[in-house]
Formats: sequence, C-alpha cells, structure tokens
Amino acid sequence: MDNDKVGRYLLQTSPYHVDVNGNISIGVLGNHLLNVAGLHSEEYGFGMSVLQPLQCTWVLSRLCIELYRSPLQHESFWIETWGESVYKLFSNRGYAIKDASGTSIGYAKSVWAVLHTESRKPINLLTINEGKMIGCMTTHSCPIEPPNRNNLRGEFLRTHEYKTVFSDIDINGHVNSIKYIEHTLDLFPMEMLKTHRLKRYDIAYVTESYYGETLFFHLYEVNHLEYMVEVKRNNEQVAVRSTLIFEPLAVE
Amino acid sequence: MDNDKVGRYLLQTSPYHVDVNGNISIGVLGNHLLNVAGLHSEEYGFGMSVLQPLQCTWVLSRLCIELYRSPLQHESFWIETWGESVYKLFSNRGYAIKDASGTSIGYAKSVWAVLHTESRKPINLLTINEGKMIGCMTTHSCPIEPPNRNNLRGEFLRTHEYKTVFSDIDINGHVNSIKYIEHTLDLFPMEMLKTHRLKRYDIAYVTESYYGETLFFHLYEVNHLEYMVEVKRNNEQVAVRSTLIFEPLAVE
Repeated sequence: MDNDKVGRYLLQTSPYHVDVNGNISIGVLGNHLLNVAGLHSEEYGFGMSVLQPLQCTWVLSRLCIELYRSPLQHESFWIETWGESVYKLFSNRGYAIKDASGTSIGYAKSVWAVLHTESRKPINLLTINEGKMIGCMTTHSCPIEPPNRNNLRGEFLRTHEYKTVFSDIDINGHVNSIKYIEHTLDLFPMEMLKTHRLKRYDIAYVTESYYGETLFFHLYEVNHLEYMVEVKRNNEQVAVRSTLIFEPLAVE
Repeated sequence: MDNDKVGRYLLQTSPYHVDVNGNISIGVLGNHLLNVAGLHSEEYGFGMSVLQPLQCTWVLSRLCIELYRSPLQHESFWIETWGESVYKLFSNRGYAIKDASGTSIGYAKSVWAVLHTESRKPINLLTINEGKMIGCMTTHSCPIEPPNRNNLRGEFLRTHEYKTVFSDIDINGHVNSIKYIEHTLDLFPMEMLKTHRLKRYDIAYVTESYYGETLFFHLYEVNHLEYMVEVKRNNEQVAVRSTLIFEPLAVE
C-alpha cells in the first residue's frame, strides 16, 4: 500500500513531561505531533526549508487527539504520521500513536494551511514545489472523527482571564499553538483531572494572539464529561475554540 | 581518562521549543539537563529504578546553567554529563552542551540529594547500591562556577503573584522544578528578553510547593544586567531563589 509514505518516529516520555497521574502532559504530546508533522513534511519536500525561501509558513488550523490511554513516564512510543488529503487551501494529516510493540493507543488528525508570512494571505497548496504534496498523500486509515467545528454549545460556567507572558510566545511572535491547550486544561480543578482522563480533545485556531494580551477563557459545560472553551483576545476576537471529552478513571 | 563514564546524548531543538529569538526555551533546556541526568544515573546503577524500590527519590537541590549561545531552532546538539563528586548528603553533576561539531556552547552543574519519599528525610548516598556512586565519579572538568548560594541582594523592584495550576504539577504532586525557571523568566518584559540573552542562571530549591498555592515572586535588581528572584509559598516559606545574569545582544 502506501506504507512507504508514512513517517515513523520513536519517542520517549521524560519524567519531567508527565502530569500528576504519570501520563504524558497533553502539551508535550501536542508538541510531538506538530514536530513530527514538520519532520515528515520536510522529508517529502514540502517542509519549512522549502516554504521559508518563498516567505511562506505552515499554520495549524485544527487539531484533534483521541487517546485510549496516554504514554506513561519513561515509556517509549511511536508516532506515525501521513498525508491524508490536500486541497487548494488546506491539507489533512493523520497520526497514530503506538506503544513499543506497535499497538495503537491513540490517533490524531490535523488540518493545515500555508500563509504568506508578510501578507498573512493563504497560498494555494497545489502550486508549492510543483504540486509535490499531491503525490505524498496516502490512503492510510485514521479511525477517528475529523476535528470538529467547535461550534459553541453548552451552559456557560465561568471565565478565566490570563495575560500572556514571554514563555507563551513562539518564534513568529504569536502565542504558541500548544500553550492554548495547556492553559485550557488548566481551567479544570485538580480533583477532576486526577479522577478523569482526557479521552478526546479538539481545537480550532481562529486568530493569532500576541504578547501582553489578556486572553479570556470562557468555559461551557455540554454535559458532566464534555466541555467547550472559547478563548477571546482582550475579550473581543476569538483566538481559539476547543472541546474536551473526559472519561472517569477506573477506581483501583 | 574518565571519558567512559561520561554520558553523551544527542538532542534536537523542535520549532515549538524555541522562544521569540529562535533560541531554545530555558525550560526546555532545563528539562533536557534533568532528563539526561536521570538516564545517566540509570545507566550507572543509581537511577530511579534502583531508588524507587527503596522508597527513595532523587531531588534537585541546585542548578546553574551558563551559555555562550543557545541551541537554535532545528539545531542538533549534544549534552554530555558526568558525576563530579559524591558526599553523604549531596552529589554534584557536571554537564557540557556542545554543538554538532563538538564545540562547547555552554555548561551546567547540578547538586542532588536523595530523599525518602514518605519521611522526606535525606538518605546517605554512600550507602545506596553498595556505594556504587563513588566509582562513577570522574575528574572531567566543568569550567564554570558552582551553583551560587543565591543569598538575596539588590534593590527590591516588584512582586508578582501566581497561583499554581495543573500543568505546573509533576508526578510527585509538587510544582515541577523547571516551571519555577519558566515563571521566573516570565517576570521580565519582552523588550528586555528580546534585546538580551540569559548568560547565566542559578537556582536553589528550598521547599516544595503544591497545587493551588499562590507563589509570590519577589524581584530584586543587583545591577541592570543581574537580577535575583525569591519565590515564597503563600508569601511565607521560601520555595526557590534564583539569580539571572543577562548580556545585551549585539545589534545587527
């Protein structure tokens, strides 16, 4: 099949990268997913080394992660990633997270666009490097729902204000994509996060936010295991929206 | 010489792990240092797999990092680490950070103790695994000053209050050692951090802090390139103290 177009990356969970339950921190896992996407696109001729001279950059538009269980402290695991489809403005990528023996413990999907770094206008993906991306797509399956639209629903619970700091900011001067995920999970009380695991997480990136802005995290409850969070820059423009689905941990 | 007792670990800086200047985030570098210390001690028979069954754990007491330059985005680099000396209550570890060609770009030193996980009492390091640690020490040189005592000095500037959240907490239920470093650097304005690089960083860990506590970061200026930060739990007990020495970046 298309197995030769699937990138396979071996990772290991550092003891400083796990949460209080011993599971890999969601931010660390998210970073791994984005990082292997970069390595894989580089290998196949449409990575940043091709885009940078064109004054273009990959921008993450949506991401979803679904986990049967999280990689644990010290655990070695694989992330596999592959191109699913490419259109004029968006490309879809799939991921499988596998334990050392090759058994799937989770999946992820991401949707990407390419923007011009100055104008911030989207670039036709089919024109980059003579349409090289098209030949890299596979029919490899990723058996989870695509990233949801994150249309806001549920009952409003509360708002948390957060002023962005230096460590939130990436090399482009924007709040790092992964930092929204960390700050979103931090809205939940420890009792909840100790007794539940995050089963599925969806995030849609709407507008960039910057250093020193105050982000308003509005939390909504869809039901006692499903929540939505809308983040607004200075309580005006939407920056990101996300949906979290939890599962109670088995009592030992 | 003792080169066979030096651990060498190859790392690469992910694009999501750099700051606005394109330098590796200090928290990411700090995590790498602690992580390779764990891997190295494991290899030499005094790692967590030996300590855990004894209900003991390594605890970081002090750390200093001195950089001539930081690893950049996508850059591959080496961290070498070795045992320097071991006493009854503390052991000293050295690190060299080297570029891909083997040229040193920085050094670090750390001081560790072993505590009983229940009583939190220190354990005599010379008794662990039949004193195995002693034979692992090297005379390898680390040409920087040892971690300073961080005795508070300078002129008080301001206090920042920070309530700890889920992502600050490690598997032991304490604030992660590295999170103090990140939050400390976040006290400085972007203008300062964009025009200066952190040349040397020293931190001393005094007492553990926990989820939901408010940490008071008291900032002192020693001179316009040197600062001290004392962090107090609920403004009472000292949690950590640190010293930061900056260097102006050359104007291009």
